[in-house]
Amino acid sequence: MDAIEVGVLGATGVVGQQFVSRLARHPWFRCTWLAASERSEGKAYKSVAPWKLSTSIPGSAADRVVQACVPGKGPKVVFSGLDASVAGDIEQAFAAAGHIVVSNARNFRMDPLVPLLIPEVNADHLTLLGEQRQAKGWPGAIVTNPNCSTVVLAMALAPLRQFDVRACIVSTMQAVSGAGYPGVPSLDILGNVVPFISGEEEKMQAETLKILGTDGGRTPYAAAVSAHCNRVPVLDGHTMTISVAFEQKPSLAEIADALRNFSGRPQELWLPSAPQPPLVVTEEPNRPQPRLDADLGGGMAVTIGRLRDCPVMDAKFVALGHNTVRGAAGAAILNAELMHSEGLLG
Amino acid sequence: MDAIEVGVLGATGVVGQQFVSRLARHPWFRCTWLAASERSEGKAYKSVAPWKLSTSIPGSAADRVVQACVPGKGPKVVFSGLDASVAGDIEQAFAAAGHIVVSNARNFRMDPLVPLLIPEVNADHLTLLGEQRQAKGWPGAIVTNPNCSTVVLAMALAPLRQFDVRACIVSTMQAVSGAGYPGVPSLDILGNVVPFISGEEEKMQAETLKILGTDGGRTPYAAAVSAHCNRVPVLDGHTMTISVAFEQKPSLAEIADALRNFSGRPQELWLPSAPQPPLVVTEEPNRPQPRLDADLGGGMAVTIGRLRDCPVMDAKFVALGHNTVRGAAGAAILNAELMHSEGLLG
Amino acid sequence: MDAIEVGVLGATGVVGQQFVSRLARHPWFRCTWLAASERSEGKAYKSVAPWKLSTSIPGSAADRVVQACVPGKGPKVVFSGLDASVAGDIEQAFAAAGHIVVSNARNFRMDPLVPLLIPEVNADHLTLLGEQRQAKGWPGAIVTNPNCSTVVLAMALAPLRQFDVRACIVSTMQAVSGAGYPGVPSLDILGNVVPFISGEEEKMQAETLKILGTDGGRTPYAAAVSAHCNRVPVLDGHTMTISVAFEQKPSLAEIADALRNFSGRPQELWLPSAPQPPLVVTEEPNRPQPRLDADLGGGMAVTIGRLRDCPVMDAKFVALGHNTVRGAAGAAILNAELMHSEGLLG
Amino acid sequence: MDAIEVGVLGATGVVGQQFVSRLARHPWFRCTWLAASERSEGKAYKSVAPWKLSTSIPGSAADRVVQACVPGKGPKVVFSGLDASVAGDIEQAFAAAGHIVVSNARNFRMDPLVPLLIPEVNADHLTLLGEQRQAKGWPGAIVTNPNCSTVVLAMALAPLRQFDVRACIVSTMQAVSGAGYPGVPSLDILGNVVPFISGEEEKMQAETLKILGTDGGRTPYAAAVSAHCNRVPVLDGHTMTISVAFEQKPSLAEIADALRNFSGRPQELWLPSAPQPPLVVTEEPNRPQPRLDADLGGGMAVTIGRLRDCPVMDAKFVALGHNTVRGAAGAAILNAELMHSEGLLG
Repeated sequence: MDAIEVGVLGATGVVGQQFVSRLARHPWFRCTWLAASERSEGKAYKSVAPWKLSTSIPGSAADRVVQACVPGKGPKVVFSGLDASVAGDIEQAFAAAGHIVVSNARNFRMDPLVPLLIPEVNADHLTLLGEQRQAKGWPGAIVTNPNCSTVVLAMALAPLRQFDVRACIVSTMQAVSGAGYPGVPSLDILGNVVPFISGEEEKMQAETLKILGTDGGRTPYAAAVSAHCNRVPVLDGHTMTISVAFEQKPSLAEIADALRNFSGRPQELWLPSAPQPPLVVTEEPNRPQPRLDADLGGGMAVTIGRLRDCPVMDAKFVALGHNTVRGAAGAAILNAELMHSEGLLG
Repeated sequence: MDAIEVGVLGATGVVGQQFVSRLARHPWFRCTWLAASERSEGKAYKSVAPWKLSTSIPGSAADRVVQACVPGKGPKVVFSGLDASVAGDIEQAFAAAGHIVVSNARNFRMDPLVPLLIPEVNADHLTLLGEQRQAKGWPGAIVTNPNCSTVVLAMALAPLRQFDVRACIVSTMQAVSGAGYPGVPSLDILGNVVPFISGEEEKMQAETLKILGTDGGRTPYAAAVSAHCNRVPVLDGHTMTISVAFEQKPSLAEIADALRNFSGRPQELWLPSAPQPPLVVTEEPNRPQPRLDADLGGGMAVTIGRLRDCPVMDAKFVALGHNTVRGAAGAAILNAELMHSEGLLG
Repeated sequence: MDAIEVGVLGATGVVGQQFVSRLARHPWFRCTWLAASERSEGKAYKSVAPWKLSTSIPGSAADRVVQACVPGKGPKVVFSGLDASVAGDIEQAFAAAGHIVVSNARNFRMDPLVPLLIPEVNADHLTLLGEQRQAKGWPGAIVTNPNCSTVVLAMALAPLRQFDVRACIVSTMQAVSGAGYPGVPSLDILGNVVPFISGEEEKMQAETLKILGTDGGRTPYAAAVSAHCNRVPVLDGHTMTISVAFEQKPSLAEIADALRNFSGRPQELWLPSAPQPPLVVTEEPNRPQPRLDADLGGGMAVTIGRLRDCPVMDAKFVALGHNTVRGAAGAAILNAELMHSEGLLG
Repeated sequence: MDAIEVGVLGATGVVGQQFVSRLARHPWFRCTWLAASERSEGKAYKSVAPWKLSTSIPGSAADRVVQACVPGKGPKVVFSGLDASVAGDIEQAFAAAGHIVVSNARNFRMDPLVPLLIPEVNADHLTLLGEQRQAKGWPGAIVTNPNCSTVVLAMALAPLRQFDVRACIVSTMQAVSGAGYPGVPSLDILGNVVPFISGEEEKMQAETLKILGTDGGRTPYAAAVSAHCNRVPVLDGHTMTISVAFEQKPSLAEIADALRNFSGRPQELWLPSAPQPPLVVTEEPNRPQPRLDADLGGGMAVTIGRLRDCPVMDAKFVALGHNTVRGAAGAAILNAELMHSEGLLG
């Protein structure tokens, strides 16, 4: 099969760099177009992308001349790492110009006609795209992935839907890389905890119910979700403690089995970015830990540990996922892989 | 009034150092006796206490010769910073020899005849001491303070008892100083989260209900408490997110008023270590933070912020307290201050 | 004596906050005027100064209305915490309007007619002010304090001038608070070292020689200084390793005596901010450490440890100072105290 | 070629884990024997090695039964990750029993008959082995690699020998992983610098001169080396600032060329662990940084940056190497690879 040409909107930011880095070694996609703000236009990528990853800037991207974000230019498939302040207008314009926009931005996530996609969880939400095209009049399309903390929670809850989740309280300990660059000032977070991330709790609560919902997410999942979001001095990996109440009363063993046996379309299709298995259930008493476990499954697995009874709700456990991989660029690329397999990038 | 002579058991450890440091500038107590394991006996305090505080070792303690923990020696009132591995036998022997042991160790906390005291919350539990003396046959006594994470939760819940707390889920982000010295290896916690602290969740759950209970704690408070305990790379200050359900349905304003107006015997008596007020309710959206707020009230106040509705329970908020002050040495000293004011050290 | 009224230029920044905080409890100075950029003009100080210190915002400042930096307005004596991008023009205008500007900004530090003052080291450089007034035609004056890393080095070398310092190599490990706010992004420094601070090495090298020099600093001290400047994940306190070669060949004991016996005008005059002694020489093998020692002498002392032979030069040691106290606001306030004692604020 | 069987002494410690992890994917060596203290004997490796690496414990090692360190048992070639407190006796006994001991311990490093080997720098020191065998009467042999900070300095200085290094002052910022496990307590190093590492400066100074010396290191290199060693809150990667004086006076360009063109036997022989090139010279102004650059060359390269004039000596620069790879297990494995290529493992 020929490589599929793709581009990146917002290529110079931290999420954009993640796209560029991951696409450089992707078996299906070839990144041939990098776009960013006018300030970077016409310059070599390496000179305008202050490289923040521990892997080197890919040779194939370093000297590529950055383009402006002009719809109609560039490949049909574009990944968007744009900042929310500009993503709304630009992504819409690209979809209107016929591009498939696979976006990490938050702007369209809660749009009832835009899939908020986790391929293992709600691959069926892609059926929204037909309606999206009609209603919006876009020859192209927009598909989004969730917020970096939402994805960990939604992946953990997905296999538990069989027990009818009634309520869930989650308290996060989120890495600084989730805030982009320059992001969190070191004076604020060195040796500290900041128990507030603007808009994050609302996103976790609303996005989770859309993702787990039916009818493409238009009927939200009927559970109550309460999120406490905190920033901690960790580089990569969002850790969260979760208490869950069920309508059915599964035993801990049944819950553990459900988590362990969870699998979805990406695993079935052996998509290149699909972790096998998507959920890793650890037995060790003091895991998962972001520094030791965030990279499991190439950063695409979610790790779950310390499953035990909750004196208030039914069960409680710890979940962890890599916020810039499963929670950002890796998520969008997996979305594109699924769409390609379903014939939706054509 | 003449100074009250006091001693410290386990004076060379980190909690012992906190006792020595705080007692050196105490208006009522004069620390004249430092005891530790045999290994330190007969040596100058400064040569056997590897000083870990940012304040200097007090001049009055530096050259004091360390004694063995022999009951009957030393002042009547002794503070105990002993390790749990030895505290049980030694504290019991001291009480049997007529000492008043004001202990930070966990060994007797759940003993039904030993007060687990937070002076603002359950000063009336001191009435246990008569029964303790009779039942145990001790001419002396043992009084304990709670675990360093428990005290923050119990202080936050105490004023909410008027609304009949039904259930509470707490997720902690605890400082490394809570683990003593050498404590948590840096390899484990630098840039990391460890979502497990051995025995901590059980202690938080059980101790909180005893503290809030009646009949000296023998009738535990009738609520369900579920704790998730995590270690984060913070030096001092335990931060925790708390969701609470009530039998009564107070408004957020009523809850805020209850927290703000909370006060107890220490405030009434203007005890030297009493924070005024005991609970600081902050309006800033991103507070409390351990680095900015742990020292409020000389480290003895608990700070509460982000009070808001909880989609699952009734209300949620963030609480923070200084784990080595309000959670250890400062707590025990406040206990002793209350006991002195009540004529119980005489 | 009546309080001396003072103002603060750049009051809303981190250095400005340090000024406001320290002046609120100063025995001589009363801060009655807070000035900042036009964006803050007319607003309450607390609403435009995003408070970054662990002490609370002083009650006397919280509601004060912030003024624009207009020369001629405000008290005669103004402290400047202005950013270097604007400090040059504003400070000059204030001096021209008759103000005594006690500045922490770098703009005038290397001006041959402006004292670069460390009161313990070169109090005599204040004699420059007469010439400054004449040459510049300013009815007022400008006095500066050194860069936050320079001051530690210069304090350590000052007592060694008696042995004729020939050369010095210094390698710093600097705290993030030295970069202001937002300053260093956490993504850059968490668990990392950044071996570069723009312009810092040049400043350390040039400023040190001016400070130790004669004729008001116009004849630089005749030694070679080489600085390696590094940022490390520390909040407060610049630590540095120093190797020194001398023309005379003092023994280690003579060097230690020189450091221990060092004292200057501030100590002689018992200025309120003067540390007694200015240099603390520690015997412990693993000190000084920023977390344990930066606050010595109220943050105004420099701590020196590990004095030993250097196989390449003559001696080596470690020095530490508090970068936002002795290296910024505290330094400027000590400068003003000296000037007041010398009758230069009148 | 058949795999060469190897064993690991001290397999359960952190260095031992590094050996086990790296050997599991080694193209030449097959690790079939894990030995540790009696406490671990007879137990499954995974149950006695508290795994501290972010890669998973290799499947081939997890269930292997740990043996006692008994000479004569196990493969001919053994890697030693033993603690210095026991390495002396055990390694000697193994050599006496015919084993080739490739050791990371410090005990024999300064023995005049034991090569202190960096394959790129002093491959010729292996000629000592004949004399070692004769003088010691060992049918086996001992070869060592340097201390984790020494190796970075020695690699950086090796290509500069052509300019006759006269003197060198180095100040290190060393990662906590260099201290093993549990190693540095978090209370000591979180947000702190500890300017002392016991014995480290002496090791850096002496080992460097042996490595760069002639006659198998018995004639030390004729330069003066002075080391300042500091611990910083970094996980992996020792960063150091270096000033060097030369007898010849090379230009910066000549120094840069010498560093860039440096290569040795491992590169010539394309040994599996050899980094290509061994020294990476970076042009970026704020590099190398441990978090971004320690993994270069699979952790086996040393990165050098900020080459510039030194006002005191001739040139100065920053060097960085991965302390647990190039500074420990990776170094020993490269030593064994060289020995195999030279026919010395046979």
